[in-house]
Amino acid sequence: MTHTAEYPGKQTKTSPATQTPAFAALSAKTPIEPFQIERRAPRPNDVAIDILYCGVCHSDIHQARDEWGGSIFPMVPGHEIVGRVSSVGTAVRKFKAGDLAGVGCMVDSCRVCENCKDGEEQYCTNPHATLTYNSRDKNGEVTYGGYSTSIVVDENYVLHISDKLDLAATAPLLCAGITTYSPLRHWNVGKGKKLGVMGLGGLGHMGLKFGHAFGAHVVQFTTSQSKIADAKKLGADEVVISTDAAQMASHAGTFDFILDTISAPHDVAGYLNLLKRDGVLCMVGAPDEPLSVPVFSLLGRRASLAGSGIGGIAETQEMLDFCAEHGIVSDIEMIPIQQINEAYARMLRNDVKYRFVIDTNSLKSGAVQG
Amino acid sequence: MTHTAEYPGKQTKTSPATQTPAFAALSAKTPIEPFQIERRAPRPNDVAIDILYCGVCHSDIHQARDEWGGSIFPMVPGHEIVGRVSSVGTAVRKFKAGDLAGVGCMVDSCRVCENCKDGEEQYCTNPHATLTYNSRDKNGEVTYGGYSTSIVVDENYVLHISDKLDLAATAPLLCAGITTYSPLRHWNVGKGKKLGVMGLGGLGHMGLKFGHAFGAHVVQFTTSQSKIADAKKLGADEVVISTDAAQMASHAGTFDFILDTISAPHDVAGYLNLLKRDGVLCMVGAPDEPLSVPVFSLLGRRASLAGSGIGGIAETQEMLDFCAEHGIVSDIEMIPIQQINEAYARMLRNDVKYRFVIDTNSLKSGAVQG
Repeated sequence: MTHTAEYPGKQTKTSPATQTPAFAALSAKTPIEPFQIERRAPRPNDVAIDILYCGVCHSDIHQARDEWGGSIFPMVPGHEIVGRVSSVGTAVRKFKAGDLAGVGCMVDSCRVCENCKDGEEQYCTNPHATLTYNSRDKNGEVTYGGYSTSIVVDENYVLHISDKLDLAATAPLLCAGITTYSPLRHWNVGKGKKLGVMGLGGLGHMGLKFGHAFGAHVVQFTTSQSKIADAKKLGADEVVISTDAAQMASHAGTFDFILDTISAPHDVAGYLNLLKRDGVLCMVGAPDEPLSVPVFSLLGRRASLAGSGIGGIAETQEMLDFCAEHGIVSDIEMIPIQQINEAYARMLRNDVKYRFVIDTNSLKSGAVQG
Repeated sequence: MTHTAEYPGKQTKTSPATQTPAFAALSAKTPIEPFQIERRAPRPNDVAIDILYCGVCHSDIHQARDEWGGSIFPMVPGHEIVGRVSSVGTAVRKFKAGDLAGVGCMVDSCRVCENCKDGEEQYCTNPHATLTYNSRDKNGEVTYGGYSTSIVVDENYVLHISDKLDLAATAPLLCAGITTYSPLRHWNVGKGKKLGVMGLGGLGHMGLKFGHAFGAHVVQFTTSQSKIADAKKLGADEVVISTDAAQMASHAGTFDFILDTISAPHDVAGYLNLLKRDGVLCMVGAPDEPLSVPVFSLLGRRASLAGSGIGGIAETQEMLDFCAEHGIVSDIEMIPIQQINEAYARMLRNDVKYRFVIDTNSLKSGAVQG
């Protein structure tokens, strides 16, 4: 077990920072490549985690390529992290060495703003939560994500992971899972409700699983006949071919909630017309171009176009516990880190069912092979 | 009192249709001009009303000029109608001759769909409510609005009007009033909430009055220094000059609800960033171009862009009763019908405080002067 500092935030000689193998984007225009980072020695409230698996999120690509602006390079992406605790700081009460642990999209927040107090740390306004990568912490240090062998995180932003579930398939729950779970819970999508899911990727397939588990009548929208069988296997009660105007029209005014997981620019107008009174179309994908919204589609049914970002720490734990209880994980394809650039290319072609997960053993044994 | 038909929907010889002076748009490209219409003889459930005043709504212009498409010509606009009951059908229980009465944006709906049953007839889905003008009723007859001397409407779509209030200034409550009252009530905008109002016209000034009456902290957005004093007089606690980036930034993340009453194409992105977590920006104006909505503004605070259309009949009565109790009416400028085209031109220049109301006496005495 690592010795920890006597004074919060101060590193001692007995707990030096750790050189850690990672993969990073050195610029917006270069591929992800081997890189060495330093992880801080655990402070009293810190948990040090040996990373076992890290999911690959579409936002990794957006940020590594600076498509949202403001990216910080070098960047070590990855915010769907599952691992095992290697050591804890002196003040840590929630974890001990050997525990399974997860880290999602954020590693800290102000803890005093209204949103933090409400357990909605993802909406921290002071000025915003410290994200797991491509962010700066309270000390101004750049954060590095899960494309690496270890990470050190304040215990309050670390999740407990059940040993009942496949660990690699659990990793994507930390972002894709909570991002779809949270809005379905917030808007009470369950029995007696009709839920639509737009997009059948990392987020979409989790939306199907949760919607089904919550008892909603779940409709998958897709442009592709080839996805019908898969969507039904994942929990869809119906599949609508969204390019078929007659099929779309037959569902007009019937949806309580539509979860839009599409992160490429796309049209939402046709879907707004499928909402019933007080229906909500909620964006969880993040297209980098503004949406075009015809106002009459909202006025005519008191509809809302909403957005939702991940979920709070307590809700993320609730989601993980729900998944453990109901046997819900992501459908994944495991890759060694050396295939990350190929994985990005395949994700952009929607050629993955449904989430790539990095086996970080590949990083430990040969990071320089990349 | 008019004799009514023995059989519902059937007119008898003793109650002929009535020739009624009106003003109409004969095409999208011609001014509003004198026109003669026929009002049906009252059926058993009908109330015949002598129109005293009719407010002039921005949507009158949109529809008279076919800017939303699908306009039916000749068109007699007007859906902010206050008058006095001249006769009632045999089955009418809620009104009697001599009563004050109001008619708003709709004169019928299916009465059996989920929305009608819920008292939200404005969202009738079977296929939609019969609007007061520019619509077709269940028999396929075109409806004609309040730019006329009388109207015949089923009693279930007629409102009681208090004699406590100025009648001309009450007319705009039937559309501008309920359109702003309903979303503020639906989203519980009251004490402890911060409300923003975009636009200071017919709708906006009613939003200020209701927001103030409900106890919210009310902020008017305007581009014009000259409107500050007026907005404060109408109920604004603060006025923000929306073109002043520093002023806007100082309100970032603080609004529970923003009521957007602007019916011209405009930018909403800057306002979405002023919402706090779970905040709602609600459109009640109806720009004829789609809005451009940056998704991150929604995701970062679980915000919603919503729309709301008028209100149900019961809620409209509730609003009218609230106004009578609290002494709330519209600020108006009265005009004879012969000035309607000039009024339209002035509305398009925002040159009215804050609603034109037609005195239909002008129509009775000299419709052909137009």
